[in-house]
Amino acid sequence: MKLQVALDCLCGEDALSLCEQVSENVDILEAGTPLIKIAGIDIVRQMKEKYPDKKVLADLKTMDVGKLEADFAFEARADIVTVLGAADDETIKGAVEAAQEHGGKVMVDLINVSDKPTRAKEAEELGAHYIGVHSGIDQQIKGEDPLEDLKSVMNATNLKTIVAGGIKPETVDTFKQVSPEVVVVGGGITKAQDPCAAAKQLKGALQ
Amino acid sequence: MKLQVALDCLCGEDALSLCEQVSENVDILEAGTPLIKIAGIDIVRQMKEKYPDKKVLADLKTMDVGKLEADFAFEARADIVTVLGAADDETIKGAVEAAQEHGGKVMVDLINVSDKPTRAKEAEELGAHYIGVHSGIDQQIKGEDPLEDLKSVMNATNLKTIVAGGIKPETVDTFKQVSPEVVVVGGGITKAQDPCAAAKQLKGALQ
Repeated sequence: MKLQVALDCLCGEDALSLCEQVSENVDILEAGTPLIKIAGIDIVRQMKEKYPDKKVLADLKTMDVGKLEADFAFEARADIVTVLGAADDETIKGAVEAAQEHGGKVMVDLINVSDKPTRAKEAEELGAHYIGVHSGIDQQIKGEDPLEDLKSVMNATNLKTIVAGGIKPETVDTFKQVSPEVVVVGGGITKAQDPCAAAKQLKGALQ
Repeated sequence: MKLQVALDCLCGEDALSLCEQVSENVDILEAGTPLIKIAGIDIVRQMKEKYPDKKVLADLKTMDVGKLEADFAFEARADIVTVLGAADDETIKGAVEAAQEHGGKVMVDLINVSDKPTRAKEAEELGAHYIGVHSGIDQQIKGEDPLEDLKSVMNATNLKTIVAGGIKPETVDTFKQVSPEVVVVGGGITKAQDPCAAAKQLKGALQ
């Protein structure tokens, strides 16, 4: 399993400083949605320029103009962009088209989609590369946990799965039984006293 | 009816130049979602600083961390922020909480929500100030038109309505029969040969 760190910082400098601390122990650096909206897409370019050997995911959470948004993220050297499963099929198709043109990948994020297995199958048919099973932070507060959703989505599609939602060093073991492609950790790394050590521990646990 | 211009530009300079041309004839300046993701939230602050008498709407299309995203947009002096109707109730509540703290407003955007009247009623109960009836650009390509949805949403709630989706000078009259609070025009102004004249014509038509 690969480890993705979600950079949930609120300014570019903090994000780059965290990259510095954790990049050695992670596979994918994620520019979080608020970070992109605050700092602009150039933060993705800066991350890729500093860490060309790492995959960079631009968590755009696109809901409209899928081609346009994916285009500018790929132009900023993102390897993977995200589109909402709640978006229109045309929006997902647009992002996939941009990915084909730029040699990038698209992750469809199932956050707050009610029938996740069905939407996952549709995303696969639309040409997505990854499917994201994601309990949002506002949903984690209500006690939601992505493990059961992950199992049903993995039964429904052959897409590579990315799982996210409150995963911490002490809970990461529960995902080993289902073995998704990528495990995303945000606060469990970024808010740890020692982000480098937290990333190293997680990376070890995922082997 | 008020006129809102959706600044669908892909860089801050173009957005500010368009504001210069059209602000006199519009009520609300909208920083579009791609513009915010490209230029960062500071573009909202620049728009409000230059045009303090106009309302500025930050089209965040928030899907998670409603409080956090609304907070940074209001701190950048947005008057109105948008949250997706497709988001969790907690996300909408978070944005409303931020609006209460900052004296701002929240628009819940029904783009790609299947049961729009029901979600509009729920948005009203959650404390939203505006409801957005919005055919996305990717949906307009398929021939969707927001007029029928607007009627059913206006029957279902007392929220002020904002209607958007391919509205042009030649089609704006059709909205007069239902009279929403705000009509949003993007390309009909921004891609017009003379954006200033287009805005003036639209503003006149909405009186």
